[in-house]
Amino acid sequence: MSGTAGQVIRCKAAVAWEAGKPLVIEEVEVAPPQKNEVRLKILFTSLCHTDVYFWEAKGQTPLFPRIFGHEAGGIVESVGEGVTDLQPGDHVLPVFTGECKECPHCHSEESNMFSIKGKPIYHFVGTSTFSEYTVTHVGCVAKINPAAPLDKVCVLSCGISTGFGATVNVAKPKKGQTVAIFGLGAVGLAAAEGARVSGASRIIGVDLNPSRFNEAKKFGVTEFVNPKDYDKPVQQVIAEMTNGGVDRSVECTGSVQAMISAFECVHDGWGVAVLVGVPNKDDAFKTHPMNLLNERTLKGTFFGNYKPRSDLPSVVEKYMNKEMELEKFITHAVPFSEINKAFDLMLSGESIRCIIRMDG
Amino acid sequence: MSGTAGQVIRCKAAVAWEAGKPLVIEEVEVAPPQKNEVRLKILFTSLCHTDVYFWEAKGQTPLFPRIFGHEAGGIVESVGEGVTDLQPGDHVLPVFTGECKECPHCHSEESNMFSIKGKPIYHFVGTSTFSEYTVTHVGCVAKINPAAPLDKVCVLSCGISTGFGATVNVAKPKKGQTVAIFGLGAVGLAAAEGARVSGASRIIGVDLNPSRFNEAKKFGVTEFVNPKDYDKPVQQVIAEMTNGGVDRSVECTGSVQAMISAFECVHDGWGVAVLVGVPNKDDAFKTHPMNLLNERTLKGTFFGNYKPRSDLPSVVEKYMNKEMELEKFITHAVPFSEINKAFDLMLSGESIRCIIRMDG
Ligand SMILES: NC(=O)c1ccc[n+]([C@@H]2O[C@H](COP(=O)([O-])OP(=O)(O)OC[C@H]3O[C@@H](n4cnc5c(N)ncnc54)[C@H](O)[C@@H]3O)[C@@H](O)[C@H]2O)c1
Ligand SMILES: NC(=O)c1ccc[n+]([C@@H]2O[C@H](COP(=O)([O-])OP(=O)(O)OC[C@H]3O[C@@H](n4cnc5c(N)ncnc54)[C@H](O)[C@@H]3O)[C@@H](O)[C@H]2O)c1
Ligand SMILES: [Zn+2]
Ligand SMILES: [Zn+2]
Ligand SMILES: [Zn+2]
Ligand SMILES: [Zn+2]
Repeated sequence: MSGTAGQVIRCKAAVAWEAGKPLVIEEVEVAPPQKNEVRLKILFTSLCHTDVYFWEAKGQTPLFPRIFGHEAGGIVESVGEGVTDLQPGDHVLPVFTGECKECPHCHSEESNMFSIKGKPIYHFVGTSTFSEYTVTHVGCVAKINPAAPLDKVCVLSCGISTGFGATVNVAKPKKGQTVAIFGLGAVGLAAAEGARVSGASRIIGVDLNPSRFNEAKKFGVTEFVNPKDYDKPVQQVIAEMTNGGVDRSVECTGSVQAMISAFECVHDGWGVAVLVGVPNKDDAFKTHPMNLLNERTLKGTFFGNYKPRSDLPSVVEKYMNKEMELEKFITHAVPFSEINKAFDLMLSGESIRCIIRMDG
Repeated sequence: MSGTAGQVIRCKAAVAWEAGKPLVIEEVEVAPPQKNEVRLKILFTSLCHTDVYFWEAKGQTPLFPRIFGHEAGGIVESVGEGVTDLQPGDHVLPVFTGECKECPHCHSEESNMFSIKGKPIYHFVGTSTFSEYTVTHVGCVAKINPAAPLDKVCVLSCGISTGFGATVNVAKPKKGQTVAIFGLGAVGLAAAEGARVSGASRIIGVDLNPSRFNEAKKFGVTEFVNPKDYDKPVQQVIAEMTNGGVDRSVECTGSVQAMISAFECVHDGWGVAVLVGVPNKDDAFKTHPMNLLNERTLKGTFFGNYKPRSDLPSVVEKYMNKEMELEKFITHAVPFSEINKAFDLMLSGESIRCIIRMDG
């Protein structure tokens, strides 16, 4: 055990005090891990749109002060009672959805893991990686190959695995089929990569931001549709391009309108639509039930249906074996002290993924 | 070829002149079959709720005068040009959804197959079996074992195959899983039968009409829920009965509220909901997208995903081999001249299936 095991650690964390306001680097106290928990030293974290949604808290229940962050790579500092399969020094990726389902962090927004001068700070989806140290349930941590560079594979901890898995594990396009991808951020581009690897004949990328189209070519996207360029619904545009609809679609935007379009643009008889984006609290997915009766399938997925602890290590091996490229997703990097830049880069649509170096 | 081949046939048909008004037995002219069409002599037909919906035309586009009927058994009278795999005398079941997809009858509500004194009468879903003779596209006819009693197997031509197939081909419950069935008419009871055959551990029947519950026991239903008995949504009642939700649900009502409940009552993580009921024209299926993200699957099906021409003959064989019982679905029979009684029996919830004898 390390010298800090069993003790409160004081370290730097980026605290969100208010919705939509820049994070503030503060000194926080991080409690020792309790039963079935581990404390991690985070080395690299990246910004995913899910952080931004809950930070903006538009159409979400606001909960502040809070420490965001869930896409990261780190090293186990110490382990709590009952943890037998992880030990200090292990290289790990935290994952926002644990396999455990029992863990209170999976269900509750509240926890007492962090505090500032004794006052508790809320955690985020059981991970809170915008901190030099964090505590997670053992079910939310995947032990990986220690040779894997954490500044690269950290992006597998959420977005890239989510998008890639949404295609290969859930939408499962067959060789030669057509696939539409809604949203060409990191998650959508990873979904496109999954379609490319699956042998899709056409990959139609849909985004409101045309600057995404050029980059998307590197990810196998063959055609582009900007809904703003048409005065008819994008599902109709796609149906006309594809003789009735695509075989598969994957929605990676978080916009409920895009979810509906992604569903309605798949071909009747066999089409499968997969929803990945995180919706707003009051959104309603609305469609005519005849669209379902016509033998379309609608599915949703968290984390691309990968089981974090059992599947993620092998996704890391895919990168190590050069079967999967991560560099092209990583467009920016900033030191921890400039974490707010990562938010600006995502909001302006400039970055795909921006890595935050915790030692900076 | 029979003596009537190539000629207009004059015969009796039950014409719906107006929405919701009793059908009137009229003498109609039935045109000879055209290219890729066959003309059938209908011997038995039964009433399915889909007929009733379009006859009531509440929230549907009304189209009258019209000849309804699509669940039936008959014999080929003559065949049109290009029909090679059917010949006069073959025993057949018409099916409202052909495999062809090219057939104009599959897409258009209009046809010139029937007329009264030269004025055209609209057909219905390509079959119009409430007539002594009818014309269908060859893709909408399944040739079956001539030894099968048409007064029994006619119910396989729509409702029973639809419900049974919705469970065994689409919902696919695993042995020991829990299944909820919404609507305990013929379609829902056949879906329950499919769940029983699949080895479901609990089959929860949901209906607004409590008189259905007693009969439903014969079809393997183990528990009953009447939404009217609760002041909370039925999906919540079911979630509480099943520790979070059933593994599978099959909706066989046509009510969009039941469709939403059927979807929301399946367990997150793996639950699959299948929609069978025919919705009203302006219905909207509405749910929070988080219900999908939580890894539920929503599917719809026509005709239980059976391919009419290739699969239906073997479903008939299931009955012939006593692997499937049809008698328990058939609660009433009336002569053609009393077809309106079949409507009354369905509307009052008394019948499961009522057979209409065309020679009567
Ligand atoms: N289900 C999960 O497990 C999971 C995991 C990670 C991320 N997510 C969600 O996936 C979504 C994408 O995440 P990201 O990090 O790639 O975000 P991102 O901001 O990098 O990319 C989103 C893209 O969608 C585009 N977009 C927005 N609205 C659109 C619309 N109506 N039509 C077409 N395009 C539209 C944007 O222009 C942007 O390019 C977010 O909703 C995020 O919360 C879900
Ligand atoms: N998709 C297809 O291929 C296909 C084929 C045949 C029939 N159908 C449809 O299946 C449905 C059932 O047909 P059927 O012939 O068995 O009808 P039916 O009238 O015999 O049975 C329907 C049952 O649903 C119950 N019900 C109605 N609203 C309900 C609600 N909100 N909650 C719970 N129960 C409710 C009724 O009390 C009745 O018992 C109809 O919508 C019909 O149009 C679809
Ligand atoms: Zn994420
Ligand atoms: Zn957990
Ligand atoms: Zn029917
Ligand atoms: Zn047809």
